[in-house]
Amino acid sequence: MRQQQWLNEQEAHVWRSFLDLRRRIEAVINQQLNEDAGLSSVDYELVVPLSEAPDGVLRARDLGRMVGWERSRLSHQVRRMEQRGLVAREDCATDARGLMIRLTPEGRAAITAAAPEHVKVVRRYFFDSLTKEEVATLAAVYDRLLAKIDSDHPGAGPS
Amino acid sequence: MRQQQWLNEQEAHVWRSFLDLRRRIEAVINQQLNEDAGLSSVDYELVVPLSEAPDGVLRARDLGRMVGWERSRLSHQVRRMEQRGLVAREDCATDARGLMIRLTPEGRAAITAAAPEHVKVVRRYFFDSLTKEEVATLAAVYDRLLAKIDSDHPGAGPS
Repeated sequence: MRQQQWLNEQEAHVWRSFLDLRRRIEAVINQQLNEDAGLSSVDYELVVPLSEAPDGVLRARDLGRMVGWERSRLSHQVRRMEQRGLVAREDCATDARGLMIRLTPEGRAAITAAAPEHVKVVRRYFFDSLTKEEVATLAAVYDRLLAKIDSDHPGAGPS
Repeated sequence: MRQQQWLNEQEAHVWRSFLDLRRRIEAVINQQLNEDAGLSSVDYELVVPLSEAPDGVLRARDLGRMVGWERSRLSHQVRRMEQRGLVAREDCATDARGLMIRLTPEGRAAITAAAPEHVKVVRRYFFDSLTKEEVATLAAVYDRLLAKIDSDHPGAGPS
């Protein structure tokens, strides 16, 4: 029983490579983030949108939608990061049931430490090996594939 | 502080899309696997190599290498799947410290139930939207990127 029995050989290879590439690059990124800033790639996913938000603060539900996580996963990860001093949870001033997540100065220092090397890793293991034409093809392909998922599963992605 | 400050606009877009696409497709696959067979995509990652192995059994360390997981993650996931009857742990006949993971009949029934629809999902959200030329470009690009990671981080991927 092969999962790819109705994919041709090249398609099966591309699909496996697509999954592998994400996993392998994530492992390299994880290692770099950990060495440079004591962050995991999961931490980084949350820290980036917070660092770009005004005052470094977002509603929990907006943050969850931006990264595409379910509420329980977000809640669990935020608790872990709060224990490590990277983020703080606050009540929402305008919504009694709302929860705000704020990047702490420690969290901002961590992303500042990690960001330059992170970009180098993304360059080294992705863009440096590609031609302009290949990057353009990837842009077109990924946009088309994301549009297809959006049309069938609206609202499942970032806002 | 943007993570993409040294990527140009198109590169930043491609990188974000690459990460989003994997996450969005995984969410769709998760939903399908859960509806058809009560499996998560994480279960599926382990069940596929087991289902393709002789007698549905692999050494834990070989399975871990094939899916690229660390030992603790594998061990945790195998325990959860054992509780649900999908796999069984066995001592290794030739290595007292070795552990074997075996797909149970229930595990095999689950993948048999999930596989046809899984392939349809992969077709629908990936290959159906691509031209032959685009698939060929993806094959070349992914191979080159994986080779680059392999050369810098040997042994981190599947055997």
